[in-house]
Amino acid sequence: MTEVKIIGENLPNMPWQNKPESAVGPVWRHSDNPVINRNPAKGIARIFNSAVAAYEDRFVGVFRAETINGRPHLHMGWSDDALNWKIEEERIEFVNEKGQPFQPNYAYDPRLVKVEGTYYIIWCTDFYGAAIGVAKTDDFRTFVRLDNPFLPFNRNGVLFPRKINDNFVMLSRPSDSGHTPFGDVFLSESPDFVYWGKHRHVMTKGGQGWWQSVKIGGGPAPIETTEGWLMFYHGVTGTCNGFVYSMGAVILDLEEPSKVKYRSSTYVLTPEEWYEERGFVNNVVFPCSTLFDAESGRIAIYYGAADTYVGVAYTTVQEIVDYVIETNEVVADDAEIGII
Amino acid sequence: MTEVKIIGENLPNMPWQNKPESAVGPVWRHSDNPVINRNPAKGIARIFNSAVAAYEDRFVGVFRAETINGRPHLHMGWSDDALNWKIEEERIEFVNEKGQPFQPNYAYDPRLVKVEGTYYIIWCTDFYGAAIGVAKTDDFRTFVRLDNPFLPFNRNGVLFPRKINDNFVMLSRPSDSGHTPFGDVFLSESPDFVYWGKHRHVMTKGGQGWWQSVKIGGGPAPIETTEGWLMFYHGVTGTCNGFVYSMGAVILDLEEPSKVKYRSSTYVLTPEEWYEERGFVNNVVFPCSTLFDAESGRIAIYYGAADTYVGVAYTTVQEIVDYVIETNEVVADDAEIGII
Repeated sequence: MTEVKIIGENLPNMPWQNKPESAVGPVWRHSDNPVINRNPAKGIARIFNSAVAAYEDRFVGVFRAETINGRPHLHMGWSDDALNWKIEEERIEFVNEKGQPFQPNYAYDPRLVKVEGTYYIIWCTDFYGAAIGVAKTDDFRTFVRLDNPFLPFNRNGVLFPRKINDNFVMLSRPSDSGHTPFGDVFLSESPDFVYWGKHRHVMTKGGQGWWQSVKIGGGPAPIETTEGWLMFYHGVTGTCNGFVYSMGAVILDLEEPSKVKYRSSTYVLTPEEWYEERGFVNNVVFPCSTLFDAESGRIAIYYGAADTYVGVAYTTVQEIVDYVIETNEVVADDAEIGII
Repeated sequence: MTEVKIIGENLPNMPWQNKPESAVGPVWRHSDNPVINRNPAKGIARIFNSAVAAYEDRFVGVFRAETINGRPHLHMGWSDDALNWKIEEERIEFVNEKGQPFQPNYAYDPRLVKVEGTYYIIWCTDFYGAAIGVAKTDDFRTFVRLDNPFLPFNRNGVLFPRKINDNFVMLSRPSDSGHTPFGDVFLSESPDFVYWGKHRHVMTKGGQGWWQSVKIGGGPAPIETTEGWLMFYHGVTGTCNGFVYSMGAVILDLEEPSKVKYRSSTYVLTPEEWYEERGFVNNVVFPCSTLFDAESGRIAIYYGAADTYVGVAYTTVQEIVDYVIETNEVVADDAEIGII
């Protein structure tokens, strides 16, 4: 095996547990999962599908908070160890670029990505149907919501953590107005975060296995490695009783990230534990965020479990990249740039 | 009534027939419809949903040609009077900006719009699902296909005939991967025809009437008038035997075209004649293009009929604008800018 390194910052105080002997597969769960339980703050029934980041000397999170009226909004949270979280009772207040209130009707499945010192929040918003919403903050006190980057219907907007060829790059999963029984991952570029184009197809649902046969969607922001952009994503299969969401992993070309280099033919984590199998939506593992330490190669994956809890799982860049290459199956023309 | 004028070029040699006494409503049909019949050229079964324009001393068209294998492609056509058309047997050959072949897998429902001396073709293309394709030409010999402006799934891309506030402006109708049982019209802007943003909701399906209850979509390029942008569009209702497509008319604000000023609460043309009621898809009137003469205010509307024929209908800017204002019903929040 070639040695694989993360290209990025060090974060020695991130959560970590060594791989237990009982582990099956390249990703193992935190022993005290879930790290966020039901009713985590006043008026909030469940938190899941959420994103965290290192900020100054502690950790910050943007959380999908299902309020007790059943509607999702985004709430901030803070933690010293990225495991025990204090969730704010008030939702994030967004303003437009003039400083006027610019609140989404609902907001779910946030990602949180730092690019050139600014933190971007990307979520699923209401734009006469499900669409990608975006906002930015430098201090986690003022949140400036920007124009929606794409037309509806779309979900799972995932920003790359640096510009590529001078452009911002965002993945998304065009969808329909409902629970969407299809879906591939596309990529778009922007010179200014206002106008977006050069859309490319990145990867398709399907393949020999059935675990990602219905649809797929981007997960945490891709991690830059010496082998390419490592991205965890969700793959969905259908059953007589609904969808099952598992986690997969893919490696995209560093300079042309619409090209897939390697993609795991199997899931790397699938619902098995009680907090993944049982909840508001049974059988969901939905990764939205990672913390990682370039020096040690350690990666902590934050994932929503059963639309009810937040779980943490671990791997190392060497272990997961080796696994993806070993189990590689690049589907259809995903190795191409994907123009038409 | 206020006098209404078209702001645009004169075209005294455009097709025209005066309104017959028997006419019902503000739009009347050409007496020799359809102007393009079945099997109009070798290998082409049907032509419909197509766009024409004045070019030099004659007329040019980009036609949706359903080939005899059942797949649609775009073919050029020429005419001296814009009624008798000579359709080219070979499909349009698109190249990319490097001059290499860049042919769509299929292409349908083209619009043809001149902006600042360049002709743009906008059509429904295959981008891992239905999406908007675009190309430009200055001479109708070389056709340069550009990057798709939007992610799938989308149809009915309609370009405005001039920039507004220095940006190109395009309408589209986000859809799903099938026959789409929903759909509103949105607007997007671009400074360079590469990157698009500032997406806005323009108008919604629905209203008191049922003729546009399922979905709506932009039609010909909007016509600039002293009352605002006049646009013909299609509205769709559902029946036990499928969709019925009628033609409506709307007036958008000149400087903020995501705002609806007036919108006809009734259709202005609906399938009644044999060539509209019967064909490959029964009961379709689908406008894609107009010719107009600013001096006289005459407008000729080119529309697809029953996915089989091309029909022409007439009105004047005064008659149609008066009608839209008289029957005005602005649905929901369509009078607003439509950000969220």
